[in-house]
Amino acid sequence: MSSAVDLDALAAARAALSTSSPLVHCLTNTVVQTLTANVLLAVGAAPAMVEAPEEAGDFAAIASALLVNVGTVHGRSAEAMRVAVRSAGAAGTPWVLDPVAVGGLRFRTDLAVELADSGPAVVRGNASEVMALAGAGAGGRGVDSTATADDALEVAVVLAGRTGGVVAVSGPVDVVTDGARVVRVGGGHPLLTRTTGAGCALGALTAAYVAVAGDRLDGAVAAHAHVALAAEAAAAVCSGPGTFAAAWVDALDAVTAEDLLRADVRDDT
Amino acid sequence: MSSAVDLDALAAARAALSTSSPLVHCLTNTVVQTLTANVLLAVGAAPAMVEAPEEAGDFAAIASALLVNVGTVHGRSAEAMRVAVRSAGAAGTPWVLDPVAVGGLRFRTDLAVELADSGPAVVRGNASEVMALAGAGAGGRGVDSTATADDALEVAVVLAGRTGGVVAVSGPVDVVTDGARVVRVGGGHPLLTRTTGAGCALGALTAAYVAVAGDRLDGAVAAHAHVALAAEAAAAVCSGPGTFAAAWVDALDAVTAEDLLRADVRDDT
Amino acid sequence: MSSAVDLDALAAARAALSTSSPLVHCLTNTVVQTLTANVLLAVGAAPAMVEAPEEAGDFAAIASALLVNVGTVHGRSAEAMRVAVRSAGAAGTPWVLDPVAVGGLRFRTDLAVELADSGPAVVRGNASEVMALAGAGAGGRGVDSTATADDALEVAVVLAGRTGGVVAVSGPVDVVTDGARVVRVGGGHPLLTRTTGAGCALGALTAAYVAVAGDRLDGAVAAHAHVALAAEAAAAVCSGPGTFAAAWVDALDAVTAEDLLRADVRDDT
Repeated sequence: MSSAVDLDALAAARAALSTSSPLVHCLTNTVVQTLTANVLLAVGAAPAMVEAPEEAGDFAAIASALLVNVGTVHGRSAEAMRVAVRSAGAAGTPWVLDPVAVGGLRFRTDLAVELADSGPAVVRGNASEVMALAGAGAGGRGVDSTATADDALEVAVVLAGRTGGVVAVSGPVDVVTDGARVVRVGGGHPLLTRTTGAGCALGALTAAYVAVAGDRLDGAVAAHAHVALAAEAAAAVCSGPGTFAAAWVDALDAVTAEDLLRADVRDDT
Repeated sequence: MSSAVDLDALAAARAALSTSSPLVHCLTNTVVQTLTANVLLAVGAAPAMVEAPEEAGDFAAIASALLVNVGTVHGRSAEAMRVAVRSAGAAGTPWVLDPVAVGGLRFRTDLAVELADSGPAVVRGNASEVMALAGAGAGGRGVDSTATADDALEVAVVLAGRTGGVVAVSGPVDVVTDGARVVRVGGGHPLLTRTTGAGCALGALTAAYVAVAGDRLDGAVAAHAHVALAAEAAAAVCSGPGTFAAAWVDALDAVTAEDLLRADVRDDT
Repeated sequence: MSSAVDLDALAAARAALSTSSPLVHCLTNTVVQTLTANVLLAVGAAPAMVEAPEEAGDFAAIASALLVNVGTVHGRSAEAMRVAVRSAGAAGTPWVLDPVAVGGLRFRTDLAVELADSGPAVVRGNASEVMALAGAGAGGRGVDSTATADDALEVAVVLAGRTGGVVAVSGPVDVVTDGARVVRVGGGHPLLTRTTGAGCALGALTAAYVAVAGDRLDGAVAAHAHVALAAEAAAAVCSGPGTFAAAWVDALDAVTAEDLLRADVRDDT
């Protein structure tokens, strides 16, 4: 059954981002840190990358939300992630798990599977990553997905049941589910896939939205819709994949609560 | 008493940057390395990030200046910072300490307090960070400052006396002091605070200027004035917070010695 | 004797990049990861930075090519490089060594000399770095070269004989040799030297080209010619060193196989 998503809730979340400026603790890969920080700043959130295992726990406890992205994870950063997730759990800080390239690579796959059992508010990845995290696929080739978001729908619903949170699968049409409801987010632009870190920044934005939204599914949907709207605007003014990133950050800043009322979202529960 | 700053000294320092191309050894956080390097290249300096504890000492000894920024510090990078600072001290290499997010986080706060006792030519931070470093405040929320530069003025003067160097406090109006003189630098643009790494790049630019200026206070003031002038020019041509960064680097390149003669600086000693 | 380079081979390699989308495993410095990834995405390749020693071996075995760049190397990343190079050798994955700032700094110099003995398909660096790697010079000041590419020609020919691969020396005119043939690549633009990571991204692009080209020398030459053509186009539309990088990525995307037929390359064997 397809029905209307509560667009007012998405718009309210966008407005809350600007007014409450959530502090987002990012444990993310070194390739995408700059874009991630700039995306958060553009929408009104406050980014902070606090990476030492000695500090990550204290910071996760005071942050509004936490992002854990395993893109370039290694021994020390894995330890910081474990400490931060434990602290976030104790403090009630919502956190997002981005299982970058999980599947073929054992070290990160074991880590991500372990972390997924600690109650992430949202798991966000592409179809191959989500399927591999759930034990239902071998994963893609590095960060590429060899499956569509809809291929991962059944697995995502099961995974959401297991984590008790939301699972968001990125693709030409994104699929976002809390195990009960299924929402599809359309729009966006292929240049997102040609800009390193766009998906990772979406994970951070999801963390920011979850910190301010009344409902986690609404928060995740709002983040995906915000990204899609901004991508369309940026694609219209950039000159190629190089100039897209800065134009996208400009556009992320410009997306208003009213813009989210016309987001391409559909409840397909 | 308010009097004129020696603008000719600032202009001379700007000219010296281009002609002597100081080599700036940057031990800085991973979020801002790219922008930091591009800012240094734009003004005519030569950046180098040499981060292994095995190499940081040798390199600090041959560099023209050293930047130590604790934004994403952890065990190994803290060790590299200690080695580099020791070597810089022995070799007479001037160095800048940027106490990012010092205050609530113990690991970096202990490190920054320890390093501050080793004679930095300049300490550069926002008001919350400078106050926390001096033991006079609890620090901000991550990298945000909850105080104005003038709130930190008294503390900055005391800290400058303790380090024997300059303390520069960033804000809408920057305050720069060597314990005796107090200079305020106006201008700039709020988009600087919405671009990740702009403050950190200012720390690197301060290191470059201190390497070439006859006087450390003049060097620090010139760096802040250079950044402010370029920010104004960039804000006039960019389309938002995303396109600001590249426009700012263009503008940093374009700021001439003559431009510094009209910098908004005021000696308020 | 100067003769024509097989331009058709360069054009064919450009076409192959887009159609076969080689997966390039990058173990590179943290300053340039974002630009490197975006350059690879722009030309149609797939970047992946898999840095943990626990994973680098497995990934190098399945990647189409490997880049090893020692710009910010330290203990753990050196171990990942050793593991990856060993695995690449066993799997037949071609790999590129970029000896950033090799010369004065012992830790990286020892590592690069050790790795150079493991059969890199291409060594790519500036003249000072290549000479230092071959034991024929003291190296430059950080990443600057104090010599021209032609100063390094004799040494490059000897080094190519020793590694059994190609040696590419960057400069206003690049020199590329496999020990038998010597090809010069002209064009390009000085703004490349004022953009952090442009040379490092060229190393990654060389890895991508070597993965798809029939001949390693052709692959390395095509990469250098591609970069030069795009730099000229970008310089014509950018507003300074800050806006150059994004314009260059746009231009790298736009360079076609046909464009490579008019590359400024010359066989000076």
